[in-house]
Order: sequence, then C-alpha cells, then structure tokens
Amino acid sequence: MTKQAHANIDTDKYPHINRGLDGIIAFSSTKSAIDGEKGELNYAGYNIDTLAENASFEEVAFLLWNDRLPKADELEELNKQLRAERDLPEPVLEYIRTTDKNAEPMSVLRTATSMLADFDDEATDNSPEANMRKSIRMTARMPAIIAAFSRVRDGKEIVAPLKEGSIAYDFLYMLNGERPGEKAEKVMDICLILHAEHGMNASTFVCRAICSTESEIYSGVTGACGSLKGPLHGGANTAVMNMLLNLDKDADVEAFIRERLAERKKVMGFGHRVYRTIDPRAKHLQKMSKQLAEETDTVYLYEWSDKIQQVMKDEKNIDPNVDFFSATVYYSMGIKPDLFTCIFAMSRVTGWTAHFMEQAENNRLIRPRQLYVGEKNQPWTPIEKR
Amino acid sequence: MTKQAHANIDTDKYPHINRGLDGIIAFSSTKSAIDGEKGELNYAGYNIDTLAENASFEEVAFLLWNDRLPKADELEELNKQLRAERDLPEPVLEYIRTTDKNAEPMSVLRTATSMLADFDDEATDNSPEANMRKSIRMTARMPAIIAAFSRVRDGKEIVAPLKEGSIAYDFLYMLNGERPGEKAEKVMDICLILHAEHGMNASTFVCRAICSTESEIYSGVTGACGSLKGPLHGGANTAVMNMLLNLDKDADVEAFIRERLAERKKVMGFGHRVYRTIDPRAKHLQKMSKQLAEETDTVYLYEWSDKIQQVMKDEKNIDPNVDFFSATVYYSMGIKPDLFTCIFAMSRVTGWTAHFMEQAENNRLIRPRQLYVGEKNQPWTPIEKR
Repeated sequence: MTKQAHANIDTDKYPHINRGLDGIIAFSSTKSAIDGEKGELNYAGYNIDTLAENASFEEVAFLLWNDRLPKADELEELNKQLRAERDLPEPVLEYIRTTDKNAEPMSVLRTATSMLADFDDEATDNSPEANMRKSIRMTARMPAIIAAFSRVRDGKEIVAPLKEGSIAYDFLYMLNGERPGEKAEKVMDICLILHAEHGMNASTFVCRAICSTESEIYSGVTGACGSLKGPLHGGANTAVMNMLLNLDKDADVEAFIRERLAERKKVMGFGHRVYRTIDPRAKHLQKMSKQLAEETDTVYLYEWSDKIQQVMKDEKNIDPNVDFFSATVYYSMGIKPDLFTCIFAMSRVTGWTAHFMEQAENNRLIRPRQLYVGEKNQPWTPIEKR
Repeated sequence: MTKQAHANIDTDKYPHINRGLDGIIAFSSTKSAIDGEKGELNYAGYNIDTLAENASFEEVAFLLWNDRLPKADELEELNKQLRAERDLPEPVLEYIRTTDKNAEPMSVLRTATSMLADFDDEATDNSPEANMRKSIRMTARMPAIIAAFSRVRDGKEIVAPLKEGSIAYDFLYMLNGERPGEKAEKVMDICLILHAEHGMNASTFVCRAICSTESEIYSGVTGACGSLKGPLHGGANTAVMNMLLNLDKDADVEAFIRERLAERKKVMGFGHRVYRTIDPRAKHLQKMSKQLAEETDTVYLYEWSDKIQQVMKDEKNIDPNVDFFSATVYYSMGIKPDLFTCIFAMSRVTGWTAHFMEQAENNRLIRPRQLYVGEKNQPWTPIEKR
C-alpha cells in the first residue's frame, strides 16, 4: 500500500486513528512534570532551577529513583556503589576495541549496554531491589562505554576509570586521559542533571513498553537507546552542531539564518512540542555556554548562538530548546558532535530506569490496536501462475 | 509512591488513564488481520491455513514485506540473497564465543543483532531500499546467531552456514552440525510461518515506536527482541515446556492440572487476549506435534498435551494458544526450552521489519502523555538537614 493510500485512510475515512497517541494519558508518574506555558520543569517535586543550582547528578539520580532527596549517608553509599561499578567486563572492552571504527557511537552504546546483561548475575531478577542495583550499574558503566569507544576510534588506548569522584569527573578523565578541572567537571555535572528526565518522551515510553511484557531492565534501556538515537529525539543537538560547523568562522550567521527561513528550511535547536516559552533547561546551558566560550577559543560559537537566538525570536517568535545550547557547550569542551547523543543517554539512563521501576510497580501490558486495511482469505495462486 | 497509591489514582480519581492503551487504534496496517471470534488469522491477504499448507517461510517473508506473493524469479532472487547473507561478522562470532555461557539466549540474540549494525555499511540509511536489504540481512543472520550460541554454551564448535537451502534447513544444520531430514525441515519451516506476524502485539508496537523517532531498523529489531523476551509475550512457550518438564514421565497429568486449577495457579499455554476460540496457529502445531512425537521418544508429551487440552476445555472452556503446542514441537526436535523464544524471534523478525517499513512510510512520533501525581517546586533542603 502506498504512502498516499495510508495517509488517506488515516485522515479521511478513519479519523479515529491516533497515530502519535496524541493526548492519550497512558500513565500516572511521580518522576517529572512539565509546564509548557510557564516553561517549568520539575523532577520528583523539585524545580530544575533548584536542582541545577544545588544538586549533584548523583543526588538527582537518587531523587528520580526514590522520589526524595538522599540523606548524607545514603548519598555517600550511592556514590560508593557508582564508583565501584565503573569497570567494564573484559568481553565488553574487547567488543569496543574490535568493532568497526566508523560505527555510530549510539549503536555501540546500545550494543555494549545490552551486552552488560550477560555479565550481571541479577540480569533476570525483576525484584525492586535487583532493579535498583542494575540501575546503579548501568548508570555507572555507560560513561565508561562511551569514553572507551571515543578513544578507540581515535586510535588511543582505553583509559580505565579512576573510581574516584563524580560520574562527570571520571567520565571526563576516561574520555581525555587527564583529570578534568573543577569548571569542566561542574559544567558536565549540570549537563547531566538537565538531561536526566523529561516526562513521557519517546525513549522513556519505549522503555516502559518493554517493561510491560515483564522483560528485564537491560532490555528496557537497550530499547530506549535505540529510540533516543533517532534524529527526531536525541539526535537534535548533533544536528545543531553540524549546522554550525558547516559555516566558515567569519560567516554572516544572521544572513545564513534569514536565508534558511526564507527557504523554509528547519533551523535546528528551536521550538519544542511542549514548551511555549524558553525551555527552562536552555537558560542554564546558555549561561555555561558563555562562560566556556570565554575560556576556550570558541567565543565565535557563543556569538553565533546569540545572534541566531535573536533572529529566531524576531522572525518567528520561537525560543531555543535544550539542544541548541548543549551543542555548543559540549563542543567547547572538546567533545565530538556525534558523541552528544551518547552523553544525553548516560544522563537519561537515570530517568529511563526510574520509569522502568515505576512501570514494574503497577504494570499492564502496553498494546494499542491497529486497523487492518487489506484483503482477507485470498485463494492461493501457484507460483508459476503469478 | 507506593503501588497502592498509583493503583488508586489510576482506577478511582483519574479514570481517563488508559495504562494498556486498550482499544486505542494507533495504526492502519496491511500486514495481518486477526478475527478473534472466528479464530482466523490473515497475513497480508492470505489465511494462515493457506500459507501453512502452501507457502515456504521465505515466500511469507516476501509477502509481509511487499503485500503480495513473489513471482518465481523474485522468490529465487530473495532466496539467493538470504543464503548469501548468512555469515556472521567475525567480531559477532567472537562475542558469541567469549560471552558468559549462562547468559540468556534472548539476551545474546538482542546484543548480537544490535552489533550487526556496526558491520552494515547501510546501517544509518533509512531509504526504503536500504531498509529492505537490512531486513533481508537480519532475517538471514539471526538464525546463525542462535545456532552459534547454542553450540558454544554446549562446549561445541560453531558450525558455519552451508548457504544452501531454506532458512529452516540451514538453521537446523548450524544448530545440530548435520543436515536435517525432510520432515524436520518442513516442521521448522511451518513453525517459522506460524510465528512470523500477529497484529499489533507488544514487540511489534515497540519496533514501530522506535521507528517513529526516525531511528534505524537495527534499533527497531533490537528493541523488539527486548520486548519479546518478557514472560508476558514471547517467553510463554518456554514456560509451557518447563511446566511439563517438571513432571515425572509417569505422572498423572490430569490430576496435576486439576490441582493447579483448584489452587488458582496459571496453566501456561491456554487462553489468548484476542482469540475466543482455538488459536488458528495451534491446529497446525498440534498436528505436527503428534507426528513428531510418534517418530521420536516423546509420545508421552503428546499424550500429556492432549489430556491437558481436554481438562482445560472441560473445566474452564479455554482453548490452547500457539505457545502450547510449539513447546512440545520444538522439544521433540531436540531444541532446549530456553531457545524457544529465540526461534520465535528469528521468525517474527520478518513481521517486525515489515511493520518498521510500514511505519517509516507514513511516520508520526509516537508519544502518549502521562499524568504527574507528585509535588512541585519544593524548597531545597541542605543535605545535613534532611
């Protein structure tokens, strides 16, 4: 059946088909609340501004998993576990060393995360306690996977985790082979906080749908990685950066954007399905983007971003979203654009696992219906007569 | 939030939450039609009885992908491609050789399928033509993955594909290290036909949801594997077999089932969310189950199945589903119960990829909503005061 035929069926003959599940409320959740009108985002009771200003990523992970902030001893215990679990099993390292150097980083992350299950004695244990331990393990190990593949494809040796400090600290150490400065660690930590959770997005929904067959949590996160890597979801900040990198350093960026708009081409990193005002996460990233640009040789990038933001506001009254500024922040930190979605994933794994555990607590098989639009019971035609 | 609290919210205060997406029509599709009242299943216009009696699995794959039966030269070309693509890339073989021998076979299949993307030059090409070629590749290679891991964990050498004959033939050859007889090949082929497609089930829905972010088809099939492995979905025939294997050979199976029913325990392999009469696939499996049992040393298994079916009909008026007889069919063929779901997957990959391509043809991001049921904008409490 052709695209046109399907399209006609959906919109004309059968208007009750809801192809995006738009407006269908499928879950109750305590994990996050988005107020699109106000531009407000809460994680489990706390405004993202409060968290970006006060919390660590590890504290946010605890919050998402437990619906409350940790006490001092609980946070210390969680950090201890997150540090202890950072090593990758040798066959996972061997896969990363030997796979195709041109493989997509998100494809490698999806495969390696899936593989971790083989080396987890609790892989098939769906108890709440085992799910919590597996969530901690995946959160600890995904940064090591990303850093290892980044180094291997650059022809460098894999750097083992220090098993010290925060996830942000050890990730930057494994990625670059040297201990990060305080500023870099802080920026990465805030980036991880800002991407940890965001309502019923596509990958979180996939994670819950996989949970609903009583499958285990590695399957949920592996599937979510596969969803996140799509250009309509987690791939957007890579697209922002690629748009910027296609310009010469002395380009007239205002003219470039006005031209794109005139040609009705998409300007990446603007607008959001939910927010009607500035994405609350973008504010924090914008501030960091400016600071970082000043410290590195990338002030032009910040100036471009600023100009693009103004043109988009003037011409279309559209605000930047989280992807717009995270692109330049990561780039200024020396991270390659095609790793951006992986960094999104190493943060969002906390939200995915929080939703998986919430789904498992009160599960129902997720299975919408379809409308069959073909023939039935046709007679068999022998192959020589077709 | 406790399970009870969530349950109360869903059912009492907010009755508009549809946790299973029950009754929501999310797609139009030409791939399959299920008539639960009549017990009738059609694949793209052809009754499953017609296909089981006349078609090969490869012909069914073509039908699902193209919405019509192949002409002789088209089927020959497809078979040629399916034979040529059976080899696994060396790093995938190395993973299978070196991973934990106690890993779940479905976990290994999920990982290895994901890994295939690294060695496919078209991995990120979402054109209809590339998607068709990738569908053929995955369908050709998944049997090799399953057979290889089965042999490795038994301490045997991996057997390379012959690249001859049908998928069923080469799979049994790779699995057992010897060419299968005509009967075994035919039974396996019909099993693959019967499991290839089945409406909007949970794994197919996950595959389409992953497609909806414009992610690529390896992500879709990897996610679907993760969904299928759940006990509420593809894991059911393994559970049937494990139930039977827990009995002594001279057990009184009628008494066992009546006891289970009296204790309100689930009898695996009976009843279906859609079929109100016998699952049309079960009829074909039942016939094969009987033939196979007579040829092997497993007549007692067929007799048990027969008795269980009678007791379930008498006591509960419930009919067997596809899982009930596929369990004994696979077991009689010498396949271990924990491989059953993998065999389901190596067949269903044709349905998954057919749906992925159908979704890509007329895509919309799939993202239902959630109801947030927690607090907002709480003040920050310093850690020492919590």
